[in-house]
Order: sequence, then C-alpha cells, then structure tokens
Amino acid sequence: MQQRYTNEVEIDSQNLSQIALKFFIMKRSAHFGPGPSQIYFTVEDHLRRAFREGIPSLGHRTQEFESIFQHATEGLRQLLGVPPGYFIFFAASATEIWERSIQNLVNERSFHFINGAFSNRFYEIAKQLGKMPEKIVVPLGEAFPPITKIPANTEMIALTHNETSTGVSLTMDFINQFRSSHPEALVVVDAVSSLPYPLFDYRKIDSVFFSVQKGFGLPAGLGVWIVNEQCIAKAEKMVSAGQRIGTYHSLPFYLLNAKKNQTPETPNVLGIYLLGKVIEDFLRRGIEVIRKETEYKAAILYQALDRHPLVSSFVKDKSARSQTVVVATGEKTKWIADELLKNGIQPGDGYGEHKKTQLRFANFPAHSKEQYEWLVDTLEKLA
Amino acid sequence: MQQRYTNEVEIDSQNLSQIALKFFIMKRSAHFGPGPSQIYFTVEDHLRRAFREGIPSLGHRTQEFESIFQHATEGLRQLLGVPPGYFIFFAASATEIWERSIQNLVNERSFHFINGAFSNRFYEIAKQLGKMPEKIVVPLGEAFPPITKIPANTEMIALTHNETSTGVSLTMDFINQFRSSHPEALVVVDAVSSLPYPLFDYRKIDSVFFSVQKGFGLPAGLGVWIVNEQCIAKAEKMVSAGQRIGTYHSLPFYLLNAKKNQTPETPNVLGIYLLGKVIEDFLRRGIEVIRKETEYKAAILYQALDRHPLVSSFVKDKSARSQTVVVATGEKTKWIADELLKNGIQPGDGYGEHKKTQLRFANFPAHSKEQYEWLVDTLEKLA
Repeated sequence: MQQRYTNEVEIDSQNLSQIALKFFIMKRSAHFGPGPSQIYFTVEDHLRRAFREGIPSLGHRTQEFESIFQHATEGLRQLLGVPPGYFIFFAASATEIWERSIQNLVNERSFHFINGAFSNRFYEIAKQLGKMPEKIVVPLGEAFPPITKIPANTEMIALTHNETSTGVSLTMDFINQFRSSHPEALVVVDAVSSLPYPLFDYRKIDSVFFSVQKGFGLPAGLGVWIVNEQCIAKAEKMVSAGQRIGTYHSLPFYLLNAKKNQTPETPNVLGIYLLGKVIEDFLRRGIEVIRKETEYKAAILYQALDRHPLVSSFVKDKSARSQTVVVATGEKTKWIADELLKNGIQPGDGYGEHKKTQLRFANFPAHSKEQYEWLVDTLEKLA
Repeated sequence: MQQRYTNEVEIDSQNLSQIALKFFIMKRSAHFGPGPSQIYFTVEDHLRRAFREGIPSLGHRTQEFESIFQHATEGLRQLLGVPPGYFIFFAASATEIWERSIQNLVNERSFHFINGAFSNRFYEIAKQLGKMPEKIVVPLGEAFPPITKIPANTEMIALTHNETSTGVSLTMDFINQFRSSHPEALVVVDAVSSLPYPLFDYRKIDSVFFSVQKGFGLPAGLGVWIVNEQCIAKAEKMVSAGQRIGTYHSLPFYLLNAKKNQTPETPNVLGIYLLGKVIEDFLRRGIEVIRKETEYKAAILYQALDRHPLVSSFVKDKSARSQTVVVATGEKTKWIADELLKNGIQPGDGYGEHKKTQLRFANFPAHSKEQYEWLVDTLEKLA
C-alpha cells in the first residue's frame, strides 16, 4: 500500500498542500459530489476580503470592476494557455452556454456526440431552438468509435470532454481530429467538469466552456465561455442573414463589452472576483502540479476500484476513464455510501437511472491528495 | 432642522436600526449608488453561516436545496403579499428577465412605456427578438400622460415601475388602469430598483420582476421573476402554435422545476440562500416599517433638494418622484460629488448623457435613516 505514495508530486513552494491538509484535518470531512462540489479552501478568505474591499457593492461600469474582469480573464488565459484571438465571456451557467452556443453558432445543423445525460441535453437544446441537430449515441460508460461519419454541411460539432453523468472522457486525439476532417465546422467543447485539468490544443477547437462550481471549487452561479474569432464571425454572419441570435448575450454584444473589460448586463461580480482570486491561487500552485496531482489521485482511486471485491470502475476502457469524475458501480454501492458517510466522506450519487447503483467521485483541485488517500484507504477497508 | 426628525417611525422590536447605526458609525461611510448598491448589513454574517453549513457545495437536486428554494420563495410571497396563482422563478439578472419575458409572452406585439434608458432597453430587446413592439416615449424626468392609446392587439404592456436612470416612478393608479382598459394584454412590471418598497395590487398585474442587488441589498447575480397562471398559459399557447420560447428558462420548464422547489439549471445557490435570509430579516423588521422608513428618507432628501441653492430634484412632478432612487440635477454636481466623497458619502453618477450633471441616490432598506440624515446634513452644508 505504501507503494502508491511514491508517485507523489513535489509539494509546491507555497506549502498550499500543507495548508489544505491542516484544513482537512480540522474539518475531517470531504465532499466528493461532482455537482456543486467541495469549495476550494481559499475561497472563504477571498470572500471576507471582498467584503472588506466593498466588492459586493461595486458598480459594474466602474474601473474597479474592469480590473476584476481583466484579472480573471488574463489569469484564465495564462492558466489554460488560451492563445490570442480567443475571447472570454461570462454567463450564468454552462446550461446557458449550451443555449447561447446553439443560438449564436448554428443556423440549422449541429452534430452531437452523445454518451450520457449532459451531452444529450446539449442536443435537446438544439432541437428546442428549432435547429436540425444530428447525433451519434453510444452506450453509457463507453467510448465513441474512433471515426464517425458527420454530414458535410455540419456547422458545429458538439463534444462533451467529460460526461459528468458517467465518467467518460474524450481523448485529446479524438477532439483534435475534427479540425482537419471537417474544417468548415466549428468545434465546440463542453469542459464543464474537467477544466482546469485538460490542456487543450486551441488550434484544434473553436470554443470551450465550463462552470465554476466544478474544477474551480467556487460557489455555483457563473459559466465561462471561451470563443475564437471564427465563432464571432459566424454569429455576425447569422445576423446578416436575418437570423436571431439573442439579445444581451449574443457574441457580438459580448465582444463589444469585453473589449472594455465589461459585461453586457450586471453580472455576478462577486463570482468573477472569486474566480480571479482562485485562478491566482492555481497559478501560484502551478497548473502542472495541479495536473499531476489530479492524475495521481485518479490513479489511486481507479487502482482501488480495479482491485475491490464489491465495486469497480463503471468505465472499463482505460483510455476513456475520466481523470476528474470517477464513477464506481456495483451491487452494494448503497452500503458503501453509508459507510463512507459514517467516516465523514460524502460521495456523489450515481446519475439518473444509476442513482442508486453507482457512486461518483469528483477529483478537482479542491480535493487534496490527503483526502483522496483517505478515501482510498476507507474504501479498501470496506470489503 | 430638528423638525424633520419628528416623522421618524418607531424602531422595531429587534433593534435592527440600532445595530445598523453601530455598523454605520464603525464604518463611517455610505454607498448610495443605485447599481449594485450598499449591501444589507446582515449579509456578511449570513454568508459566514452559509460556509459553516456547507451551502456553497450543496447539490441543487438535494432536499437541502429544495428547503432553501422554498424558504426564499415563501418568504418573498409573505413580504410582497404575492397571492396564490403566482409563481416565483430565479434568473441570472433582470436583463435576462427582459429577454425571457418577451420570448415567453409575446408572439408579435408588446407595448412599452419609455421614459429612460432601462424602459427603452426592454423595448429594444423586443425588437432584437424579432417582435413588433410599439411604444410611447416621454422626455426624461417626466410622467406619462394619464391615458395612452394602446393598440387593441397588444399582447403585453411593459411598464417600468421605477426608471433607475431618471428617478421617475409610475403611480399605482397608473399601473392598475390597464387590467380593465386592456383585459387581453398581460401587464408586466419591471420593479428592478423599487421592490420591496412598492405594494402592488397583484390582481392588476400579471408579472413583476427585480434583481437582488438593488432593494434587497445583496451581491449581484440573481434576478427574481414573478408570473401568474395567465403568463404560463400564454407561453404554453406559444409552444402549441409552434413559436420558440427558449429552452431551460421557458416558463413551462421553470414551473415544472419550481413545483419541486428546484431550478432548471444549477443556479446561484448561495444567492438564493442569501435572498431567503435577507427576506427573513426584512420580515422581522416588518415591511410596513421598511416602507415608512423609505418614505421618511425620501422625504428629507427631496425636501433638502427643493431648498438647495445648487442642486434640485430632476423630477419636478412630485407624484412622479421615485421613493427609491432620488435624482439630483444642477450645474455643480461634480463639486458636490467630490465634497460628499470627502465625507465618506458615495453618491451614484447620473446616467448616460446626464452622467456628469446629475447625481443619483439609492434609497433602499440597506440605507439607514442615520445615513440619510447624515447625507442631508452634509448636502445642506454644501451651499
């Protein structure tokens, strides 16, 4: 058992890991639900500071707000490696971004890769908006075939990098294939429950989005939408052709405001402030460290599931296993969940039809290595 | 000068006013901007408690969230006197509700009463959504004529109870006339910067909405939309007729979720929690006390403006003067603003073309009588 600790990454210079450990020992509880998830341990302090500085009362047309906007977006650029020619906008939720993406980027045809409830909802939204979306559907927990026939007139290819309901991730090779195979289509990636972990090749995608209550460890109520110039051009083309692309959250209006570091409407100012602060923390810790820790934590949990007599990984194909949402399946999950809870460990329920037969474990930057080791130790004792 | 204090209302049993006073003396600053405005003095404590209770990590499909939803909506019903047959939904902002109202309630024709930037934006959103809105426009700072000819086929009458840009309010008689004169039209009231102050006669209106960063003294990032069964029926009729009414924030889908005390998407959970808590505080203080204090504070400020040698009320017609956003105009407003700031008093800028020649003073429940008396005293010395 000691062996698995040998992969441990270096503790970063700020000793954040040790602070997190202290925090964790103090609380002796961990929340692994992948919905709104465990809050990053610095957030409460940032919030206290925000009140001291009067941020909650700040007008959204002030220079102070513009600085907050700029701090968050420039930090995010640096953290995720977003190149020039890509813009960062704020919405209320990733659900909103599903709707706005279709509204702004699709005249008639989007193509959706569906492997669970969330990728399916993106497709359903396209239908509700009166488009003619097409799809490929694979069974829950399985990867897509490497090559899929996509109609030539497809305007947007909708990919869900991490299907939160099942714990299946797309590989980077899979995502990156579409730029050359379908150069006319916009490649849009839902990375709701994976960022900041994945390192995307932005030359191969046109848009990516997430919401802050997952990997950024923040209270829910903010979605982040990254789009490139091709997306803006498409939205403008839609307008020229007399299509409706919405009002205050249309891409051209977003851009007009973002150029001034502003938002079209009064936004969740405090949410944007906190996002900027947590990004600062992540940058200090180092995105490489975060990535390695994520992989270490996922590895020890998958290893425990692969050896466990009562539960196993729902996703069998190792290359399709999510690093950020690990899904366990088995007949005794209810008992296991109860036992974990007795130990102060809160797993996430399974999703939908698997609510009672699966458990989901978020593996976000807010979840410390110590919490994961504790989870694995506890799980191993339940046999 | 002592005379004006004789109108003072009783301090309520909870001594909240005294606590607010202590708070104010401690800080010796006041923020009168009408955008995101001064935060209600209990909010920071509620936030601390929210973190202690794990609210920021709470899944939005849990019973705990349903209780938070119910607490906020039932509290609001009681506070505003919302009768049965009206539903309460959460959006990201009032700007979103402008868009969703038009999308859900108007096939072709809305009619807009425009007396400033915000009522005009509601109209513009209807145009952007491809509708054929009509309007009556009056000069900034002036009231509408008592009778307006509205086309017979109007589906929605859009009223802005309190035009935040100019400080003009509609009277209740004005709002209440349309139910009988245009029984087929839905009467929709933007009460963004007035609630919880106004007591609407809900039999005379079909929908009212606001955002929490004004009168509720909360951080921005949440809009509240109240609609009646006629609104739901209209949205359903639109769907039957093949109209598009949006996706996750369509009225039927809102209702489906609200019946379970849930929201269609992951909402601003913390915002809803804080709203419920502040409503609880308002209920304890008493809505009647809040209304009387609002009127007292408005009265002393308007009185000071009416007597002041350098600034005066922008709205001359006393029956059109807003109780919740007081707008001052004059040639030396820049100097006055600077002097107020030196005293720790932050006025709001004028809006748009009047940015430099007007000052706006929010008069919300978060603004104590002591702060208003201090504002008036300071203003009177600037002559």
